[in-house]
Amino acid sequence: MGMNKIVQCVPNFSEGRDLEKIEKIVNPFRGKNGVKLLDYKRDEDHNRVVVTVVGEPEAVKDAVIEAMGVAIEVIDMTKHQGQHPRMGAIDVVPFIPIKNISMTEAVELAKEVAKIASEKYNLPIFLYEKAATDPQRENLATIRKGEFEGMAEKIKSPEWTPDFGPAEIHPTAGVTAVGARMPLVAFNVNLDTNNLEIANKIAKCVRHISGGLRFCKAIGIELSDRGIVQVSMNMTDYTKTSLYRAFELIRIEAKRYGVNIVGSEIIGLVPMEALIDTAVYYLGVEDFSMDQVLETRIME
Amino acid sequence: MGMNKIVQCVPNFSEGRDLEKIEKIVNPFRGKNGVKLLDYKRDEDHNRVVVTVVGEPEAVKDAVIEAMGVAIEVIDMTKHQGQHPRMGAIDVVPFIPIKNISMTEAVELAKEVAKIASEKYNLPIFLYEKAATDPQRENLATIRKGEFEGMAEKIKSPEWTPDFGPAEIHPTAGVTAVGARMPLVAFNVNLDTNNLEIANKIAKCVRHISGGLRFCKAIGIELSDRGIVQVSMNMTDYTKTSLYRAFELIRIEAKRYGVNIVGSEIIGLVPMEALIDTAVYYLGVEDFSMDQVLETRIME
Repeated sequence: MGMNKIVQCVPNFSEGRDLEKIEKIVNPFRGKNGVKLLDYKRDEDHNRVVVTVVGEPEAVKDAVIEAMGVAIEVIDMTKHQGQHPRMGAIDVVPFIPIKNISMTEAVELAKEVAKIASEKYNLPIFLYEKAATDPQRENLATIRKGEFEGMAEKIKSPEWTPDFGPAEIHPTAGVTAVGARMPLVAFNVNLDTNNLEIANKIAKCVRHISGGLRFCKAIGIELSDRGIVQVSMNMTDYTKTSLYRAFELIRIEAKRYGVNIVGSEIIGLVPMEALIDTAVYYLGVEDFSMDQVLETRIME
Repeated sequence: MGMNKIVQCVPNFSEGRDLEKIEKIVNPFRGKNGVKLLDYKRDEDHNRVVVTVVGEPEAVKDAVIEAMGVAIEVIDMTKHQGQHPRMGAIDVVPFIPIKNISMTEAVELAKEVAKIASEKYNLPIFLYEKAATDPQRENLATIRKGEFEGMAEKIKSPEWTPDFGPAEIHPTAGVTAVGARMPLVAFNVNLDTNNLEIANKIAKCVRHISGGLRFCKAIGIELSDRGIVQVSMNMTDYTKTSLYRAFELIRIEAKRYGVNIVGSEIIGLVPMEALIDTAVYYLGVEDFSMDQVLETRIME
Protein backbone atom coordinates (compact mmCIF):
# COMPACT_ATOMS: atom_id res chain seq x y z
CA MET A 1 0.00 0.00 0.00
CA GLY A 2 1.41 3.35 -1.00
CA MET A 3 4.98 3.64 -2.19
CA ASN A 4 8.21 4.59 -0.61
CA LYS A 5 9.74 6.94 -3.14
CA ILE A 6 7.70 8.95 -5.62
CA VAL A 7 9.18 10.87 -8.51
CA GLN A 8 7.30 12.87 -11.11
CA CYS A 9 8.39 13.12 -14.73
CA VAL A 10 6.99 15.59 -17.28
CA PRO A 11 8.46 14.65 -20.67
CA ASN A 12 7.62 16.93 -23.62
CA PHE A 13 7.40 15.25 -27.02
CA SER A 14 7.33 17.12 -30.35
CA GLU A 15 4.03 15.75 -31.64
CA GLY A 16 0.74 17.49 -30.91
CA ARG A 17 -1.37 16.68 -33.97
CA ASP A 18 -1.28 13.00 -34.91
CA LEU A 19 -3.42 11.27 -32.25
CA GLU A 20 -2.25 7.82 -33.26
CA LYS A 21 1.39 8.75 -32.81
CA ILE A 22 0.61 10.46 -29.49
CA GLU A 23 -1.12 7.34 -28.17
CA LYS A 24 1.90 5.26 -29.17
CA ILE A 25 4.24 7.60 -27.30
CA VAL A 26 2.05 7.67 -24.19
CA ASN A 27 1.37 3.94 -24.18
CA PRO A 28 4.54 2.90 -22.27
CA PHE A 29 3.15 4.83 -19.25
CA ARG A 30 -0.01 2.74 -19.09
CA GLY A 31 -0.69 -0.45 -17.15
CA LYS A 32 2.72 -0.70 -15.53
CA ASN A 33 3.31 -1.47 -11.87
CA GLY A 34 4.67 1.58 -10.05
CA VAL A 35 3.85 4.01 -12.87
CA LYS A 36 0.82 6.27 -12.94
CA LEU A 37 -0.04 8.38 -15.96
CA LEU A 38 -1.69 11.50 -14.51
CA ASP A 39 -2.23 13.55 -17.61
CA TYR A 40 -1.16 14.29 -21.16
CA LYS A 41 -1.99 17.55 -22.85
CA ARG A 42 -1.36 18.02 -26.54
CA ASP A 43 -1.31 21.40 -28.25
CA GLU A 44 -1.84 21.55 -32.01
CA ASP A 45 -0.33 25.01 -32.42
CA HIS A 46 2.71 24.06 -30.37
CA ASN A 47 2.69 20.65 -32.07
CA ARG A 48 3.77 19.17 -28.77
CA VAL A 49 2.44 16.86 -26.07
CA VAL A 50 3.24 17.29 -22.37
CA VAL A 51 2.96 14.06 -20.37
CA THR A 52 2.69 14.00 -16.57
CA VAL A 53 3.56 10.75 -14.85
CA VAL A 54 4.38 9.80 -11.25
CA GLY A 55 5.65 6.64 -9.64
CA GLU A 56 8.53 4.63 -8.29
CA PRO A 57 11.86 5.92 -9.64
CA GLU A 58 12.99 2.69 -11.32
CA ALA A 59 9.60 2.01 -12.90
CA VAL A 60 9.28 5.59 -14.16
CA LYS A 61 12.83 5.45 -15.53
CA ASP A 62 12.12 2.33 -17.57
CA ALA A 63 8.83 3.68 -18.90
CA VAL A 64 10.38 7.01 -19.89
CA ILE A 65 13.23 5.33 -21.75
CA GLU A 66 10.70 3.16 -23.56
CA ALA A 67 8.57 6.18 -24.51
CA MET A 68 11.67 8.01 -25.75
CA GLY A 69 12.33 5.09 -28.09
CA VAL A 70 8.79 5.26 -29.46
CA ALA A 71 9.05 9.02 -29.98
CA ILE A 72 12.27 8.57 -31.95
CA GLU A 73 10.51 6.02 -34.15
CA VAL A 74 7.39 8.09 -34.88
CA ILE A 75 8.63 11.70 -34.93
CA ASP A 76 10.68 13.20 -37.73
CA MET A 77 12.02 16.58 -36.67
CA THR A 78 13.08 17.46 -40.23
CA LYS A 79 9.35 17.79 -40.93
CA HIS A 80 8.27 19.28 -37.59
CA GLN A 81 6.64 22.69 -37.36
CA GLY A 82 5.16 24.31 -34.27
CA GLN A 83 5.00 27.55 -32.32
CA HIS A 84 6.80 26.26 -29.26
CA PRO A 85 10.61 26.28 -29.41
CA ARG A 86 11.97 22.74 -29.71
CA MET A 87 15.21 20.96 -30.46
CA GLY A 88 14.28 17.29 -30.53
CA ALA A 89 11.61 14.62 -30.85
CA ILE A 90 11.91 14.22 -27.09
CA ASP A 91 12.43 17.87 -26.36
CA VAL A 92 12.83 17.84 -22.60
CA VAL A 93 12.57 15.28 -19.78
CA PRO A 94 12.47 16.82 -16.28
CA PHE A 95 12.43 14.65 -13.13
CA ILE A 96 10.76 16.17 -10.07
CA PRO A 97 11.18 14.82 -6.54
CA ILE A 98 7.76 14.36 -4.88
CA LYS A 99 8.02 12.08 -1.87
CA ASN A 100 10.84 10.45 0.12
CA ILE A 101 13.25 11.36 -2.64
CA SER A 102 15.89 14.08 -2.59
CA MET A 103 16.84 16.41 -5.41
CA THR A 104 20.21 14.61 -5.47
CA GLU A 105 18.40 11.36 -6.19
CA ALA A 106 16.29 13.02 -8.88
CA VAL A 107 19.51 14.32 -10.48
CA GLU A 108 20.98 10.80 -10.36
CA LEU A 109 17.86 9.43 -12.01
CA ALA A 110 18.09 12.08 -14.75
CA LYS A 111 21.73 11.12 -15.38
CA GLU A 112 20.90 7.41 -15.55
CA VAL A 113 18.12 8.05 -18.05
CA ALA A 114 20.39 10.32 -20.10
CA LYS A 115 23.16 7.72 -20.15
CA ILE A 116 20.98 4.75 -21.05
CA ALA A 117 18.86 6.58 -23.65
CA SER A 118 21.89 8.20 -25.30
CA GLU A 119 23.54 4.80 -25.76
CA LYS A 120 20.39 2.95 -26.73
CA TYR A 121 19.19 5.48 -29.28
CA ASN A 122 22.48 7.17 -30.29
CA LEU A 123 20.92 10.41 -29.08
CA PRO A 124 22.89 13.48 -27.90
CA ILE A 125 21.61 14.57 -24.47
CA PHE A 126 22.20 17.71 -22.42
CA LEU A 127 21.71 17.71 -18.67
CA TYR A 128 19.86 20.84 -17.47
CA GLU A 129 18.62 22.71 -14.38
CA LYS A 130 19.63 20.91 -11.18
CA ALA A 131 21.31 18.16 -13.23
CA ALA A 132 23.38 20.63 -15.27
CA THR A 133 27.14 20.02 -15.41
CA ASP A 134 27.83 23.69 -16.11
CA PRO A 135 26.02 26.88 -15.02
CA GLN A 136 25.58 27.77 -18.71
CA ARG A 137 23.49 24.63 -19.12
CA GLU A 138 21.10 25.25 -16.22
CA ASN A 139 18.67 27.26 -18.29
CA LEU A 140 16.77 25.16 -20.82
CA ALA A 141 16.23 28.15 -23.12
CA THR A 142 19.99 28.65 -23.43
CA ILE A 143 20.53 25.03 -24.41
CA ARG A 144 17.61 25.10 -26.86
CA LYS A 145 18.66 28.35 -28.55
CA GLY A 146 18.95 27.73 -32.29
CA GLU A 147 16.33 24.98 -32.04
CA PHE A 148 16.39 21.77 -34.07
CA GLU A 149 17.47 23.55 -37.23
CA GLY A 150 20.52 25.15 -35.61
CA MET A 151 21.51 22.25 -33.39
CA ALA A 152 23.60 20.32 -35.96
CA GLU A 153 26.09 23.19 -36.01
CA LYS A 154 25.74 24.20 -32.35
CA ILE A 155 26.74 20.88 -30.79
CA LYS A 156 29.93 20.73 -32.83
CA SER A 157 31.33 23.65 -30.84
CA PRO A 158 33.35 22.42 -27.82
CA GLU A 159 31.21 24.61 -25.57
CA TRP A 160 28.11 22.63 -26.53
CA THR A 161 29.39 19.07 -26.53
CA PRO A 162 26.48 17.00 -25.22
CA ASP A 163 26.77 15.50 -21.72
CA PHE A 164 25.90 12.08 -23.12
CA GLY A 165 25.79 10.57 -26.59
CA PRO A 166 27.44 11.58 -29.86
CA ALA A 167 28.55 15.13 -30.68
CA GLU A 168 26.22 15.19 -33.64
CA ILE A 169 22.45 15.40 -33.74
CA HIS A 170 20.23 12.41 -34.30
CA PRO A 171 19.17 12.86 -37.95
CA THR A 172 15.41 12.76 -37.23
CA ALA A 173 15.22 13.18 -33.43
CA GLY A 174 17.67 16.05 -32.90
CA VAL A 175 18.83 16.44 -29.31
CA THR A 176 17.21 16.08 -25.90
CA ALA A 177 17.54 17.82 -22.54
CA VAL A 178 17.15 15.66 -19.43
CA GLY A 179 17.17 17.28 -16.01
CA ALA A 180 15.79 17.64 -12.53
CA ARG A 181 13.83 20.48 -10.98
CA MET A 182 11.37 21.28 -8.23
CA PRO A 183 7.62 21.09 -8.92
CA LEU A 184 6.27 24.25 -10.58
CA VAL A 185 3.11 25.88 -9.26
CA ALA A 186 1.25 28.09 -11.74
CA PHE A 187 -0.33 30.70 -9.46
CA ASN A 188 -2.15 33.76 -10.81
CA VAL A 189 -3.50 36.66 -8.76
CA ASN A 190 -6.40 38.74 -10.11
CA LEU A 191 -6.66 42.50 -9.57
CA ASP A 192 -9.70 44.80 -9.67
CA THR A 193 -8.36 46.97 -12.47
CA ASN A 194 -8.16 46.69 -16.25
CA ASN A 195 -4.84 48.53 -16.26
CA LEU A 196 -2.24 46.08 -17.61
CA GLU A 197 0.57 48.45 -16.73
CA ILE A 198 -0.28 48.07 -13.04
CA ALA A 199 -0.17 44.26 -13.30
CA ASN A 200 3.19 44.51 -15.05
CA LYS A 201 4.59 46.89 -12.44
CA ILE A 202 3.50 44.56 -9.64
CA ALA A 203 4.89 41.54 -11.53
CA LYS A 204 8.26 43.31 -11.66
CA CYS A 205 8.21 43.79 -7.88
CA VAL A 206 7.53 40.16 -7.03
CA ARG A 207 9.62 38.33 -9.62
CA HIS A 208 13.18 37.25 -9.06
CA ILE A 209 14.74 38.68 -12.19
CA SER A 210 13.84 42.27 -11.37
CA GLY A 211 14.52 42.22 -7.62
CA GLY A 212 11.68 40.16 -6.19
CA LEU A 213 11.29 36.73 -4.70
CA ARG A 214 13.98 34.17 -5.51
CA PHE A 215 11.72 31.41 -6.88
CA CYS A 216 9.06 33.46 -8.61
CA LYS A 217 8.60 34.29 -12.29
CA ALA A 218 5.84 36.79 -13.06
CA ILE A 219 4.24 38.78 -15.87
CA GLY A 220 1.14 40.94 -16.17
CA ILE A 221 -1.73 39.45 -18.19
CA GLU A 222 -5.01 40.91 -19.41
CA LEU A 223 -8.22 38.94 -18.73
CA SER A 224 -10.12 40.94 -21.31
CA ASP A 225 -13.36 38.95 -21.02
CA ARG A 226 -13.55 39.85 -17.32
CA GLY A 227 -12.19 43.37 -17.78
CA ILE A 228 -9.45 42.80 -15.23
CA VAL A 229 -5.73 42.03 -15.17
CA GLN A 230 -3.71 39.44 -13.35
CA VAL A 231 -0.21 38.83 -12.12
CA SER A 232 0.57 35.45 -13.66
CA MET A 233 3.29 33.58 -11.77
CA ASN A 234 5.35 30.45 -11.94
CA MET A 235 6.48 29.52 -8.46
CA THR A 236 9.62 27.53 -9.18
CA ASP A 237 10.32 26.30 -5.63
CA TYR A 238 7.40 26.63 -3.24
CA THR A 239 9.48 25.10 -0.44
CA LYS A 240 11.62 28.26 -0.44
CA THR A 241 9.29 30.91 -1.88
CA SER A 242 5.86 30.28 -0.35
CA LEU A 243 2.69 31.04 -2.26
CA TYR A 244 1.33 33.25 0.52
CA ARG A 245 4.45 35.39 0.43
CA ALA A 246 3.99 36.24 -3.23
CA PHE A 247 0.27 36.79 -2.60
CA GLU A 248 0.82 39.19 0.31
CA LEU A 249 3.53 41.08 -1.60
CA ILE A 250 1.13 41.58 -4.49
CA ARG A 251 -1.50 42.85 -2.06
CA ILE A 252 0.99 45.33 -0.61
CA GLU A 253 2.18 46.56 -4.02
CA ALA A 254 -1.38 46.81 -5.37
CA LYS A 255 -2.21 49.15 -2.52
CA ARG A 256 0.09 51.78 -4.10
CA TYR A 257 -2.36 51.98 -6.98
CA GLY A 258 -5.53 51.75 -4.91
CA VAL A 259 -6.00 48.30 -6.42
CA ASN A 260 -7.24 45.18 -4.61
CA ILE A 261 -6.83 41.46 -5.09
CA VAL A 262 -10.15 39.94 -6.16
CA GLY A 263 -9.13 36.31 -6.38
CA SER A 264 -6.52 33.91 -7.63
CA GLU A 265 -6.08 30.79 -9.74
CA ILE A 266 -3.99 27.69 -9.47
CA ILE A 267 -3.51 26.16 -12.91
CA GLY A 268 -2.96 22.43 -13.14
CA LEU A 269 -1.46 20.32 -10.39
CA VAL A 270 -0.13 21.56 -7.06
CA PRO A 271 1.67 19.57 -4.37
CA MET A 272 -0.38 19.54 -1.16
CA GLU A 273 2.53 20.97 0.80
CA ALA A 274 2.40 24.26 -1.15
CA LEU A 275 -1.14 24.86 0.11
CA ILE A 276 -0.72 23.35 3.57
CA ASP A 277 2.24 25.67 4.12
CA THR A 278 -0.07 28.56 3.26
CA ALA A 279 -2.82 27.39 5.64
CA VAL A 280 -0.28 26.92 8.43
CA TYR A 281 0.90 30.51 7.88
CA TYR A 282 -2.54 32.12 7.97
CA LEU A 283 -3.69 30.11 11.00
CA GLY A 284 -0.34 30.67 12.74
CA VAL A 285 -0.06 26.96 13.54
CA GLU A 286 2.86 26.36 15.91
CA ASP A 287 5.23 23.39 15.48
CA PHE A 288 3.29 21.88 12.59
CA SER A 289 4.81 18.89 10.84
CA MET A 290 3.81 17.45 7.46
CA ASP A 291 3.79 14.08 9.25
CA GLN A 292 0.57 15.23 10.90
CA VAL A 293 -1.13 15.19 7.52
CA LEU A 294 -3.09 11.96 7.21
CA GLU A 295 -2.29 11.59 3.50
CA THR A 296 1.44 11.89 4.16
CA ARG A 297 1.16 8.92 6.49
CA ILE A 298 -1.04 6.93 4.13
CA MET A 299 1.47 7.40 1.30
CA GLU A 300 4.50 6.45 3.43
CA MET B 1 -0.08 1.76 -6.69
CA GLY B 2 -2.32 3.68 -4.32
CA MET B 3 -5.73 2.35 -3.37
CA ASN B 4 -9.22 2.99 -4.45
CA LYS B 5 -11.09 3.29 -1.17
CA ILE B 6 -9.48 4.29 2.08
CA VAL B 7 -11.18 4.07 5.45
CA GLN B 8 -9.72 4.98 8.81
CA CYS B 9 -10.51 3.13 12.02
CA VAL B 10 -9.65 4.33 15.55
CA PRO B 11 -10.52 1.50 17.93
CA ASN B 12 -10.10 2.20 21.67
CA PHE B 13 -9.15 -0.79 23.83
CA SER B 14 -9.30 -0.83 27.64
CA GLU B 15 -5.66 -1.66 28.32
CA GLY B 16 -3.06 1.07 28.75
CA ARG B 17 -0.56 -0.50 31.14
CA ASP B 18 0.45 -4.03 30.19
CA LEU B 19 2.75 -3.58 27.18
CA GLU B 20 2.69 -7.25 26.30
CA LYS B 21 -1.11 -7.28 26.11
CA ILE B 22 -1.11 -4.04 24.10
CA GLU B 23 1.29 -5.52 21.54
CA LYS B 24 -0.94 -8.57 21.21
CA ILE B 25 -3.98 -6.38 20.56
CA VAL B 26 -2.15 -4.20 18.02
CA ASN B 27 -0.49 -7.10 16.24
CA PRO B 28 -3.41 -7.91 13.87
CA PHE B 29 -2.86 -4.48 12.28
CA ARG B 30 0.74 -5.23 11.31
CA GLY B 31 2.11 -6.75 8.13
CA LYS B 32 -1.22 -7.10 6.36
CA ASN B 33 -1.88 -6.13 2.76
CA GLY B 34 -4.16 -3.12 2.56
CA VAL B 35 -3.83 -2.24 6.25
CA LYS B 36 -1.55 0.44 7.62
CA LEU B 37 -1.05 0.95 11.34
CA LEU B 38 -0.46 4.71 11.70
CA ASP B 39 -0.25 5.05 15.45
CA TYR B 40 -1.17 3.64 18.82
CA LYS B 41 -1.13 5.76 21.94
CA ARG B 42 -1.55 4.20 25.34
CA ASP B 43 -2.41 6.16 28.47
CA GLU B 44 -1.63 4.62 31.84
CA ASP B 45 -4.01 6.86 33.79
CA HIS B 46 -6.82 6.20 31.34
CA ASN B 47 -5.71 2.55 31.17
CA ARG B 48 -6.59 2.63 27.50
CA VAL B 49 -4.92 2.39 24.12
CA VAL B 50 -6.12 4.32 21.06
CA VAL B 51 -5.12 2.69 17.77
CA THR B 52 -5.17 4.54 14.44
CA VAL B 53 -5.24 2.43 11.30
CA VAL B 54 -6.07 3.17 7.64
CA GLY B 55 -6.55 1.00 4.61
CA GLU B 56 -8.85 -0.81 2.27
CA PRO B 57 -12.28 -1.33 3.84
CA GLU B 58 -12.33 -5.14 3.65
CA ALA B 59 -8.77 -5.52 4.92
CA VAL B 60 -9.34 -3.08 7.79
CA LYS B 61 -12.59 -4.86 8.68
CA ASP B 62 -10.88 -8.24 8.99
CA ALA B 63 -7.99 -6.83 11.02
CA VAL B 64 -10.31 -4.99 13.41
CA ILE B 65 -12.41 -8.09 14.02
CA GLU B 66 -9.25 -10.07 14.71
CA ALA B 67 -7.96 -7.43 17.16
CA MET B 68 -11.34 -7.39 18.91
CA GLY B 69 -10.96 -11.12 19.48
CA VAL B 70 -7.51 -10.65 20.98
CA ALA B 71 -8.76 -7.84 23.26
CA ILE B 72 -11.55 -10.09 24.55
CA GLU B 73 -8.97 -12.76 25.35
CA VAL B 74 -6.49 -10.55 27.20
CA ILE B 75 -8.68 -7.91 28.90
CA ASP B 76 -10.81 -8.59 31.97
CA MET B 77 -13.12 -5.64 32.58
CA THR B 78 -14.07 -6.93 36.03
CA LYS B 79 -10.53 -5.94 37.06
CA HIS B 80 -10.20 -2.79 34.93
CA GLN B 81 -9.62 0.60 36.52
CA GLY B 82 -8.90 3.85 34.71
CA GLN B 83 -9.80 7.54 34.60
CA HIS B 84 -11.44 7.43 31.18
CA PRO B 85 -15.09 6.30 31.07
CA ARG B 86 -15.35 2.84 29.49
CA MET B 87 -17.92 0.07 29.08
CA GLY B 88 -16.01 -2.74 27.43
CA ALA B 89 -12.68 -4.35 26.57
CA ILE B 90 -13.17 -2.93 23.08
CA ASP B 91 -14.74 0.29 24.19
CA VAL B 92 -15.42 1.97 20.89
CA VAL B 93 -14.70 1.30 17.18
CA PRO B 94 -15.33 4.29 14.89
CA PHE B 95 -14.95 4.03 11.11
CA ILE B 96 -14.03 7.23 9.28
CA PRO B 97 -14.35 7.73 5.51
CA ILE B 98 -11.10 9.10 4.09
CA LYS B 99 -10.96 8.63 0.33
CA ASN B 100 -13.36 7.45 -2.39
CA ILE B 101 -15.70 6.17 0.29
CA SER B 102 -18.98 7.71 1.40
CA MET B 103 -20.32 8.00 4.93
CA THR B 104 -23.04 5.54 3.89
CA GLU B 105 -20.35 3.00 3.05
CA ALA B 106 -18.56 3.66 6.35
CA VAL B 107 -21.86 3.04 8.16
CA GLU B 108 -22.30 -0.22 6.24
CA LEU B 109 -18.79 -1.27 7.22
CA ALA B 110 -19.53 -0.48 10.89
CA LYS B 111 -22.69 -2.61 10.73
CA GLU B 112 -20.85 -5.52 9.12
CA VAL B 113 -18.15 -5.42 11.79
CA ALA B 114 -20.78 -5.18 14.53
CA LYS B 115 -22.71 -8.14 13.13
CA ILE B 116 -19.71 -10.41 12.61
CA ALA B 117 -17.99 -9.55 15.91
CA SER B 118 -21.20 -9.88 17.94
CA GLU B 119 -21.80 -13.37 16.58
CA LYS B 120 -18.18 -14.50 16.71
CA TYR B 121 -17.53 -13.29 20.27
CA ASN B 122 -21.05 -13.32 21.75
CA LEU B 123 -20.57 -9.62 22.38
CA PRO B 124 -23.39 -7.04 22.71
CA ILE B 125 -22.76 -4.11 20.34
CA PHE B 126 -24.36 -0.68 20.04
CA LEU B 127 -24.22 1.28 16.81
CA TYR B 128 -23.43 4.98 17.41
CA GLU B 129 -23.02 8.37 15.69
CA LYS B 130 -23.75 8.13 11.97
CA ALA B 131 -24.42 4.39 12.31
CA ALA B 132 -26.91 4.87 15.16
CA THR B 133 -30.34 3.25 14.74
CA ASP B 134 -31.94 5.77 17.11
CA PRO B 135 -31.17 9.44 17.84
CA GLN B 136 -30.68 8.51 21.48
CA ARG B 137 -27.78 6.30 20.45
CA GLU B 138 -25.95 8.88 18.39
CA ASN B 139 -23.97 10.23 21.32
CA LEU B 140 -21.38 7.80 22.63
CA ALA B 141 -21.49 9.31 26.14
CA THR B 142 -25.22 8.53 26.39
CA ILE B 143 -24.64 4.90 25.44
CA ARG B 144 -21.67 4.57 27.78
CA LYS B 145 -23.42 6.15 30.80
CA GLY B 146 -23.24 3.74 33.73
CA GLU B 147 -19.96 2.35 32.33
CA PHE B 148 -18.96 -1.31 32.54
CA GLU B 149 -20.23 -1.67 36.10
CA GLY B 150 -23.72 -0.42 35.29
CA MET B 151 -24.04 -2.02 31.86
CA ALA B 152 -25.28 -5.47 33.02
CA GLU B 153 -28.47 -3.82 34.32
CA LYS B 154 -28.74 -1.10 31.64
CA ILE B 155 -28.89 -3.37 28.60
CA LYS B 156 -31.72 -5.39 30.10
CA SER B 157 -34.05 -2.40 29.68
CA PRO B 158 -35.86 -2.53 26.30
CA GLU B 159 -34.62 0.98 25.57
CA TRP B 160 -31.04 -0.27 25.65
CA THR B 161 -31.27 -3.57 23.82
CA PRO B 162 -28.02 -3.80 21.85
CA ASP B 163 -28.19 -3.45 18.07
CA PHE B 164 -26.30 -6.73 17.68
CA GLY B 165 -25.49 -9.63 19.98
CA PRO B 166 -27.05 -10.84 23.21
CA ALA B 167 -29.02 -8.60 25.57
CA GLU B 168 -26.56 -9.33 28.32
CA ILE B 169 -23.01 -8.15 28.77
CA HIS B 170 -20.00 -10.26 27.93
CA PRO B 171 -18.84 -11.33 31.40
CA THR B 172 -15.27 -10.03 30.98
CA ALA B 173 -15.50 -7.79 27.89
CA GLY B 174 -18.71 -5.86 28.67
CA VAL B 175 -20.23 -4.13 25.65
CA THR B 176 -18.85 -2.31 22.61
CA ALA B 177 -19.94 0.66 20.50
CA VAL B 178 -19.22 0.50 16.77
CA GLY B 179 -19.97 3.46 14.57
CA ALA B 180 -19.05 5.85 11.80
CA ARG B 181 -18.08 9.49 11.96
CA MET B 182 -16.18 12.20 10.13
CA PRO B 183 -12.49 12.76 10.90
CA LEU B 184 -11.94 14.92 13.98
CA VAL B 185 -9.48 17.79 13.86
CA ALA B 186 -8.12 18.91 17.23
CA PHE B 187 -7.51 22.63 16.64
CA ASN B 188 -6.50 25.01 19.44
CA VAL B 189 -6.18 28.78 19.17
CA ASN B 190 -3.87 30.64 21.58
CA LEU B 191 -4.72 34.11 22.96
CA ASP B 192 -2.45 36.79 24.38
CA THR B 193 -4.10 36.87 27.79
CA ASN B 194 -3.92 34.73 30.94
CA ASN B 195 -7.63 35.32 31.63
CA LEU B 196 -9.32 31.91 31.38
CA GLU B 197 -12.74 33.52 31.57
CA ILE B 198 -12.13 35.24 28.23
CA ALA B 199 -11.15 31.93 26.59
CA ASN B 200 -14.31 30.34 27.97
CA LYS B 201 -16.51 33.19 26.76
CA ILE B 202 -15.03 32.93 23.28
CA ALA B 203 -15.37 29.13 23.33
CA LYS B 204 -19.08 29.60 24.06
CA CYS B 205 -19.45 31.85 21.03
CA VAL B 206 -17.86 29.44 18.56
CA ARG B 207 -19.16 26.08 19.79
CA HIS B 208 -22.31 24.47 18.48
CA ILE B 209 -23.95 23.68 21.80
CA SER B 210 -24.17 27.31 22.90
CA GLY B 211 -25.09 28.91 19.57
CA GLY B 212 -21.89 28.71 17.53
CA LEU B 213 -20.69 26.70 14.57
CA ARG B 214 -22.50 23.44 13.84
CA PHE B 215 -19.46 21.13 13.86
CA CYS B 216 -17.34 22.72 16.56
CA LYS B 217 -16.85 21.73 20.20
CA ALA B 218 -14.85 24.18 22.30
CA ILE B 219 -13.64 24.91 25.83
CA GLY B 220 -11.25 27.40 27.38
CA ILE B 221 -7.92 25.99 28.59
CA GLU B 222 -5.09 27.54 30.62
CA LEU B 223 -1.55 27.12 29.30
CA SER B 224 -0.08 28.05 32.65
CA ASP B 225 3.56 27.46 31.66
CA ARG B 226 3.21 30.06 28.90
CA GLY B 227 0.98 32.38 30.92
CA ILE B 228 -1.69 32.38 28.22
CA VAL B 229 -5.04 30.73 27.55
CA GLN B 230 -6.41 28.91 24.53
CA VAL B 231 -9.69 28.03 22.92
CA SER B 232 -9.38 24.26 22.55
CA MET B 233 -11.62 22.89 19.80
CA ASN B 234 -12.69 19.63 18.26
CA MET B 235 -13.78 20.25 14.70
CA THR B 236 -16.19 17.37 14.11
CA ASP B 237 -16.81 17.90 10.38
CA TYR B 238 -14.27 20.16 8.66
CA THR B 239 -16.06 19.67 5.33
CA LYS B 240 -18.97 21.69 6.73
CA THR B 241 -17.37 23.82 9.43
CA SER B 242 -14.04 25.00 8.06
CA LEU B 243 -11.06 25.58 10.31
CA TYR B 244 -10.59 29.14 9.07
CA ARG B 245 -14.18 30.01 9.97
CA ALA B 246 -13.67 29.04 13.61
CA PHE B 247 -10.32 30.84 13.57
CA GLU B 248 -11.73 34.08 12.19
CA LEU B 249 -14.70 33.99 14.59
CA ILE B 250 -12.31 33.64 17.51
CA ARG B 251 -10.33 36.61 16.21
CA ILE B 252 -13.51 38.68 15.99
CA GLU B 253 -14.74 37.70 19.44
CA ALA B 254 -11.30 38.22 21.01
CA LYS B 255 -11.36 41.79 19.76
CA ARG B 256 -14.17 42.57 22.22
CA TYR B 257 -11.68 42.02 25.02
CA GLY B 258 -8.73 43.70 23.33
CA VAL B 259 -7.20 40.26 23.01
CA ASN B 260 -5.29 38.90 19.99
CA ILE B 261 -4.62 35.48 18.57
CA VAL B 262 -0.94 34.62 19.01
CA GLY B 263 -0.90 31.24 17.34
CA SER B 264 -2.62 27.91 17.07
CA GLU B 265 -2.01 24.18 17.34
CA ILE B 266 -3.18 21.15 15.46
CA ILE B 267 -2.94 18.08 17.66
CA GLY B 268 -2.44 14.70 16.00
CA LEU B 269 -3.48 13.91 12.46
CA VAL B 270 -5.35 16.19 10.07
CA PRO B 271 -6.74 15.35 6.62
CA MET B 272 -5.00 17.46 3.95
CA GLU B 273 -8.34 18.80 2.75
CA ALA B 274 -8.98 20.59 6.06
CA LEU B 275 -5.85 22.69 5.53
CA ILE B 276 -6.08 23.02 1.75
CA ASP B 277 -9.62 24.37 2.18
CA THR B 278 -8.14 26.97 4.52
CA ALA B 279 -5.36 27.95 2.08
CA VAL B 280 -7.86 28.22 -0.78
CA TYR B 281 -9.96 30.59 1.37
CA TYR B 282 -7.11 32.92 2.34
CA LEU B 283 -5.67 33.05 -1.19
CA GLY B 284 -9.16 33.45 -2.69
CA VAL B 285 -8.47 30.70 -5.23
CA GLU B 286 -11.27 30.54 -7.78
CA ASP B 287 -12.68 27.21 -9.03
CA PHE B 288 -10.20 25.09 -7.12
CA SER B 289 -10.69 21.34 -7.18
CA MET B 290 -9.08 18.79 -4.86
CA ASP B 291 -8.25 16.86 -8.06
CA GLN B 292 -5.60 19.53 -8.69
CA VAL B 293 -3.71 18.31 -5.65
CA LEU B 294 -0.92 16.03 -6.80
CA GLU B 295 -1.31 13.71 -3.82
CA THR B 296 -5.02 13.23 -4.54
CA ARG B 297 -4.08 11.99 -7.99
CA ILE B 298 -1.26 9.79 -6.73
CA MET B 299 -3.61 8.10 -4.26
CA GLU B 300 -6.38 7.51 -6.81
